[in-house]
Formats: sequence, structure tokens, C-alpha cells
Amino acid sequence: MDYEKQPVAIDLSHHLSDVSKARRTSPLKGLSKYMGKPGVITLAGGMPNPGYFPFSTITADGLVPDSFPVSTSSSQSSSTSWFWKIFGAAPRKEKSTPLTIPKYVKDPSSHVNLATALQYGTATGLVPLQKFLQEFVTKVYQPAYSNFVALAHTGNTDGWNRAALTLFNPGECFLTEEWTYPSALASVNPLGVTAVAVGMDNEGMSPESLRKILAEWDESVQGKKRPHVMYTVPVGQNPSGATMGGKRKKEIYDICVEYDIVIVEDDPYYFLQEGKYVPKLVRSTESTPDDVSQYIASLAPSFLRYDYQGRVIRLDTFSKTIAPGSRLGWFTCNPLFAERLERAGEVSTQAPCGFGQSIITSLLLNWGFEGYIRWLRGLGTQYRSRRDFFIDTFADEFDLTLSTGEGGAWRGCDVYAASEKRDAHGEGEKFAMTARTPLFSFVPPTSGMFIWLKVHFENHPAFSPDDDSFEMKLWVALAEAGLIISPGWFFVADDENSPDGPNDGHYRISFSFSEFDELKKAVGILGKVVREFFKEA
Amino acid sequence: MDYEKQPVAIDLSHHLSDVSKARRTSPLKGLSKYMGKPGVITLAGGMPNPGYFPFSTITADGLVPDSFPVSTSSSQSSSTSWFWKIFGAAPRKEKSTPLTIPKYVKDPSSHVNLATALQYGTATGLVPLQKFLQEFVTKVYQPAYSNFVALAHTGNTDGWNRAALTLFNPGECFLTEEWTYPSALASVNPLGVTAVAVGMDNEGMSPESLRKILAEWDESVQGKKRPHVMYTVPVGQNPSGATMGGKRKKEIYDICVEYDIVIVEDDPYYFLQEGKYVPKLVRSTESTPDDVSQYIASLAPSFLRYDYQGRVIRLDTFSKTIAPGSRLGWFTCNPLFAERLERAGEVSTQAPCGFGQSIITSLLLNWGFEGYIRWLRGLGTQYRSRRDFFIDTFADEFDLTLSTGEGGAWRGCDVYAASEKRDAHGEGEKFAMTARTPLFSFVPPTSGMFIWLKVHFENHPAFSPDDDSFEMKLWVALAEAGLIISPGWFFVADDENSPDGPNDGHYRISFSFSEFDELKKAVGILGKVVREFFKEA
Repeated sequence: MDYEKQPVAIDLSHHLSDVSKARRTSPLKGLSKYMGKPGVITLAGGMPNPGYFPFSTITADGLVPDSFPVSTSSSQSSSTSWFWKIFGAAPRKEKSTPLTIPKYVKDPSSHVNLATALQYGTATGLVPLQKFLQEFVTKVYQPAYSNFVALAHTGNTDGWNRAALTLFNPGECFLTEEWTYPSALASVNPLGVTAVAVGMDNEGMSPESLRKILAEWDESVQGKKRPHVMYTVPVGQNPSGATMGGKRKKEIYDICVEYDIVIVEDDPYYFLQEGKYVPKLVRSTESTPDDVSQYIASLAPSFLRYDYQGRVIRLDTFSKTIAPGSRLGWFTCNPLFAERLERAGEVSTQAPCGFGQSIITSLLLNWGFEGYIRWLRGLGTQYRSRRDFFIDTFADEFDLTLSTGEGGAWRGCDVYAASEKRDAHGEGEKFAMTARTPLFSFVPPTSGMFIWLKVHFENHPAFSPDDDSFEMKLWVALAEAGLIISPGWFFVADDENSPDGPNDGHYRISFSFSEFDELKKAVGILGKVVREFFKEA
Repeated sequence: MDYEKQPVAIDLSHHLSDVSKARRTSPLKGLSKYMGKPGVITLAGGMPNPGYFPFSTITADGLVPDSFPVSTSSSQSSSTSWFWKIFGAAPRKEKSTPLTIPKYVKDPSSHVNLATALQYGTATGLVPLQKFLQEFVTKVYQPAYSNFVALAHTGNTDGWNRAALTLFNPGECFLTEEWTYPSALASVNPLGVTAVAVGMDNEGMSPESLRKILAEWDESVQGKKRPHVMYTVPVGQNPSGATMGGKRKKEIYDICVEYDIVIVEDDPYYFLQEGKYVPKLVRSTESTPDDVSQYIASLAPSFLRYDYQGRVIRLDTFSKTIAPGSRLGWFTCNPLFAERLERAGEVSTQAPCGFGQSIITSLLLNWGFEGYIRWLRGLGTQYRSRRDFFIDTFADEFDLTLSTGEGGAWRGCDVYAASEKRDAHGEGEKFAMTARTPLFSFVPPTSGMFIWLKVHFENHPAFSPDDDSFEMKLWVALAEAGLIISPGWFFVADDENSPDGPNDGHYRISFSFSEFDELKKAVGILGKVVREFFKEA
């Protein structure tokens, strides 16, 4: 954007819930002009003297930013050597730098220290962390307005929960992808808040389906007011693995402006953008751009990039980029929402854990912005290699037939239909060009940690359209054979109104955790169990 | 208790809020018989491989358990040497032990490690921490029933917030002390939940006032159902500093049985039980008992000790005993409530931060139960010395007159009335035995971090009963002179119905944080400003 960015000008206060509006402004606010002046003695709060914190120093051995390569291994290397090279990445000797956090420092505002980090702190997070996040958001997400706020939270689950209490009155509903993150539903359902399922395609949420739902909304039929909030996982859509590009985001944003909708962008997988899956035989080495701006430009932009009205609450987390146990992340949003979200934090989680904040902030300050970007590039490449390896093993285990999805959530996608291998004793992969009875289909994810597949129970000899017990039966058969995956019903946004019709037979399989030999073994179990399952009459 | 403890037998499920009842049981529950079996491959969750956590080791230098003495300094030593001995405690060379947390260990269920602690974890907390807490609760609080659960939370503010969402429907009210912790009110007020103020005396909540409120409750007059929940800070009552003994707790518990009330016992100051204040001239050295059982027996028991029906939700926190930045604590309650509180945690904070959990757990395992008790004894002694020192400085700055409180919240208490010193140039302390015009009165706290005082604005030359602006005027005068304390209006539970009448003129002053010279300086500012304030017409 070349023009100078402006502060948010429109009033979005009508989106606040009654609960949020009723939250008191911190009583200290009115008194704040007296606080923190040099020489002032403050005996107001219940803060212990830091001499009583039972730690003198904490040292963390932080990995170096270039711990992982930024290009995928060449597809030319043999399957086995390639396999071991990647597999060897985790247990190999790690290169690290000691990060020391003393109890006391001379300048506590810029140097991380235990006396500050382990004391009561504001819900906004440690000052050096705030500065880092502000720089990070400015450079990476490039919000379309100037006065955005980066506010700490304790992970995106806390973030969504706080956003929900800030935006929803009981009985309201919100827009989300027809398949979505189960915990997002579980947070709000007890508040009497339900999901309206929007259709999907190869880029996640479909603007046509969204517009249709909003244009045709009839309160007297639906029994609810038109939704004023959207919850979306636009990158590494959970569970489908779709990636929403900039053009699509702009289109959806404009619809949200038209219908006055607040967008909650839950984006844990943003740096796990893996690109299109290319079969092993024709795959070449892929590298992320070395130049920081080029790397950033290579990623799908955030909704913030188009958010000239400040109607996006973006949720970022360190769960996937540092570790889930961080329980640390942040909101990026307009100042009005930020103030209410901060109040909601003060009476629930307070500040994020000081041990985690201080260790993570020390690592980030040691790495610097460019170092962190380097780490993220390496991490993204690891996930791309994992995704490729995992789908390659499907090609080893099944005959795969490639086609372009025509309807429903897979419209426009590369759909791989898997059928029983014709030559069970053959080696290598085969892309069968003739139609055979597919056991299941899947779309290789373009981001994230999961493969999302649909088993074609309609091809089962005992299939009946009225029998929806197949999904759990196959799940139990897999579990008894030693493989646990996620059944698809976890992810159904709205059981009664699914834009693409019946939704049983889906499963989500994660390739983020296991070592490569275990992933290969898992696909072997899947193959054996599914083949046997389809033979039962 | 000599008899064998029994599991909770009564049904308390009618206390659950609609929101809590509507929370789904974790979908994994039904599938759990397949999980965690040896040899099973789990590709269900979005867990990153621990090889991607950018830390190889974390080392914390933990202080030794006997870092602080367990007896107060002798009152015979001169004021100055005594002062420096205590003041010297914080900056002196600390003795510490390195606690190393590796990424991987052989037995992750009993040894703290980063691969587990930084991964997604259950809301119940790390397994070795759970075991420590279970032992701690059993030995220290000795619940009256057998099947209690110790469940992690992220500090008592999160604990109360989760308990509130679990117990309250909108529009309900709860019983609490007429002066109470402001954040407890701020959490629930936006949910349309309000406080019913119960009168207090020298042991905190008054059973007579409680019984009167419950017996006389008339839904048609009050416009609300009789409360079914009590929120209480029984030790180091915030702000009054009162300590509720066992006999009083039993009495209140029995009333709660009679009227079917769930007690939320918020007890952050439990180990800061300081005993009665004894004026410096007649004070002797005090030590806590060396024997662990005797030390435990010397503390006021928890409500859990009397909780044969499982109607107590106790909130413990490491904020005062380790550090506020820990953001770690735990519930102790019956299994029914524990399961619902765990669900509420899963969709908000998830597990407490893994950095904090692993470091604190390592410290606790290194110290062991007896070591932690030794730490707590030292800490309690520090606060006792701080309390004594702080009140001694009041005796230096003002003439104090001791009497026994006759009515209202100070009934039965040692009340010190402070008036202008007769001989401004005299040294040492004086307890004037003649009545003079008191500027303010206070009751020395028997637990906690605060002194709670009431300024006698009725003795001000310009006093008028209709003018309630004095409290903020004095607060501003103090702030402008360089001393920030908490105005009393923060702590009013119910503005409109205060059992002891008008409640302006109170202030809470903390002696937990500042070094001793600063505390002395603060009392000097207070003296100067209050004396001048009372001279204005």
C-alpha cells in the first residue's frame, strides 16, 4: 500500500456483547496519571517483593534460527536416503545458544528479567514482547490501518473464548466453514451460540455460499438475527488443509463490510504454507525465498491486509511456531476491541505466564525479527517435507487417480482417489489412469498439519444410505489395529444444515508429530484395515 | 479425623449453571479406551513433533528451601540493627541449586521434560505436578472426604472465573464479605451476577449476619433467588487482613449445609498467617514449629477439613508462595465439579503454561514436600516481620491508642486509633492512654499483605455527613505527595446494602513489596499528608 495508513474511522461498538459492555474499566485507569512516576511509592497492589521469588536465574538453551534447512530434499534421491535424511533431522545434535534471564537488570523496560516477568503484569504482556509483536505485525501482516493493537493472550483457544464473550449475546449465531475446529464450537455452544455453516471449495470458505446465506437470511424463518461475526481458519483450514489466497480474502472482506460482520481470523498454521503437492516422480527441490520481503510476499496475506475498517480480530499463537505449551499468542485488532479484550483478560487469565513470556521473549530478542523469519522458513519447509512424504506413502500403499474436484467442498481441488493396488507386489508408486472402485479420496493440504479424507462407504458391499454407522465402525477397526485418527463428525459445524449434504465418512489424519517410519507404518495399517473393511459384507 | 474418610455421597449437580451443564464431554472420552496403549500410533491431534520446539534444555537456579529464617528477630535488638537485618534479607547472596529440564527423558510420567511439558497437555496439569498437589492437599488441608480432586488452573482469578461460569446463571447473586476482592466482583458483574454483603468481625465473615440474611431472604422483596454460592477469602481476608479460625469455619460450613450453599474458598494468603501483632516493646522472638505436623496444626484449617459433603471449591495459587507470574494454581473439589471445571478449562486456557509448569514442578520435586513446607515457613516469617515492622513505624509516626472494637466489622478486634504525636521531637513509640482526636484507626492484620485503615473524616473541621468526597480528596493529596495506596471504594461488595452502614474513608496499604526504608518513608508521607489534611477547613 503506498498511501499513508489512517486510523480506524468507523464505529464498531454495536458489535460488543452486553457482557463486554458491562465490564468495568479498570479502576486504576482514572488514577493512572499518578502511577509510575519516579520517586512515587506504590503500596496499592498485593505484589510480593521479588526477593521472595525462589529463582535467581533461568537459562534456556535456545536453538539457532537456521536449525532446519529452507529447501526440500531433491526428489531425485532414492526413497530410502531421502527418508533417513529427513527422519534424521530431529534426533541429530542440536545447535543452541544459552539465553540467560537474571532476576534483576538495570533497564527492566528493554531487558527481560525475572523481577518483572514473575511479578503481576498487565494483560497486554511484557513490554519487550509487545514491541516485538508490534514490529512483527507491521512487517508481516501489514494491516490496512494505522492504530492496530497487538495484545497478548494465552493461546488461540483463550483468544477465541475471550473474543466470543466480547462479541456474542446468548442465542446469537456466527458464520464459519462447514467443517471447522471443534474446540471453537465447544467454547461457544454452552453460551447458546451456534454455527451457521458456509460452503467451501479449494480456498476454504466460499464467497458465493457466504453471500447466499446473508442475502437470503430471514429472521422469521431462521429464528435468529443475521450473524454479525465470522470465525474462520483461512490458512491450513482445519480440517481441510485449504489455503485462502489474497483475492479470496478481499472478496470475503468486502461481503463482511456490506453485511457489517466482524471477522475473527484464527490463524495458527499461517507459517505452515506448504504449496501444491507435486507427485514424487515429477517433484523438484523447493526453497523459500531468501529475501525477507520476498518470503513474506510469497505467503497468502492475512485478512488484516484488507482491513481498512478495523473489523478483523486476528488470533496468532506460538503453539505451532515455538511450542503448544507456550500458552502464548496475541490478538491484532482495533483499539476499541483491544480495550474490551484486555478487560476480559484481567478477570480470567490475567497476564500470560511469566516463565513462558520471559523465555520466549528472550529467544525472540536473541533471534531478532530476521532470525525468527529464518526459523519460520525452516519450520515451514519441514512441514512441506512431512506433507510430501506422507502423501508419497499413500501413493506407495494405494493406486491413486488424480482428478479435479467438481462440486461441494472439493470444487477446483486436486482430488486423489485411492483404490486397492493392482499389483500388491509391485514397487514404487503408480498413478492409475483407469477408473477403479475408489476406497477413499483426499485433497493434499496446501497448508497445515492434516490430511482430510473421505471414505467411499457408498462402494461398500453392505452400504445403505440410511446407515450412518460406517464412520465409527471403521474408526474402531483402525483403533483396534493400532491407529488412532480423528473421526470427521468432530468437525461438523452444523449437523442439520450442511451446504454440501450428508457429511459422514470423513477422517482427519495428522502428519505433524510422528517420526517418518511411524507415518509409513500408519499408512500401512490404514491400507490393510480399509481393504479388509471393504471386503466385509 | 480418626474414622476412614468416605467419598462424597450427596448430589450437588443442581448447583451447576446452564452453561456448565451444556458443555460437551470431551469427544475423546468415549474413545479413550483405545488411547495411550503401547504400540498404538496416534495421528489424531495437531501436535508438533518435539524436535521442532526451539529449546534443548532449560535450567533454573532455584533457591534452597531454607533461604529465609523461621524465627522473627528479637525485639530486644535496636530498631536500626533489626531493620537492617531484615532489609538485608533480600539483596544478600542467594543460595541456589540448578534444576535442569532436558527435552527428553526415559520416564516422562515421573520426570519433568520439555517434550511433554511444551506439548499440548491436559487441563489437569503435568502428571508429576498432579501427584505433588494430591499429596500436598492430603497432608496440609486434610479434606473430610476421600475422593477429592486437585485440578490445575492458571491462578485464582482464572479459578474464580471458571467456578463462576460453572455455578452461576445470569441474574443470580452470591454471598461474600462486605469488603471483598474487587476482581472477584469484576469477573461476575458483567454476567449479571451480584454480591450480597455479609457482615464481618475479627474473624472475617460473621455467622450471625450470614444466618440472618439467609433466614430472612424473601425472593419477592429481594427480587432474586436466595444465593446458593458463597465467595470468601477466609485467611488474610482481602482487604481486612482477618483470619478465620476452625471453629468459625465449622459454624459457617454448617449454615451452608443447612441452606445448601457451595463455598468457593479463595485462599491465596493461607501461608501468610502472621498471628497477633504485639507492640515492639513487649514483643519476643517468634518461631514457627519445626515439626511439619505441628506447623500444619498451627495454621487455621481450610474449609476442606469440615467438608464432609464436598460442597467446597478451594482455590490455591502459587502467586504468593512462588511468584505471581507463575499463573499456576489449583482447584480442590469434588469429582463432579472437577469434571465440569476441567471442561471449562479446555475451551479457554487449556493447560497452564508448560514453561511455568515444568520449572515450578522441578523446584517442588527438588524441594520435596518437607522442603516446600520449610520454604513456606520462612516466607510466612518474612511477612510477619514485615507486618510488625510496618505497624511499628505507625507507632513511631503517630500516638496510638489501643482498644477493643465494639461494633461493625471490627467487633472483637485490637483497634489502634492514631492521633497526632504530642511530642513531635520525641523518640521511640508511645501508646497514649488518654483519648485524643483520632485521625484514623486500623486493626493489625493477622494474615496477608495489607493494612486496612479507616480515616475519621467525621473529625475533620469541614466534615458533613452528606459529603462523601473526602476519601478521594485525601487519596489525591497522598498521590501528589508521592504515595499510592488503594482507596476503599474498590472493595465495597454491595454499595447499596452494607451491613455496617456508610463505608467511605477506608484505604488498603500493602507492606508486601517495598523495601523497609521505603515502607518507613511511606508512613512518613502518610503522617504529613493526613495531619495537613485535617488542618484544612
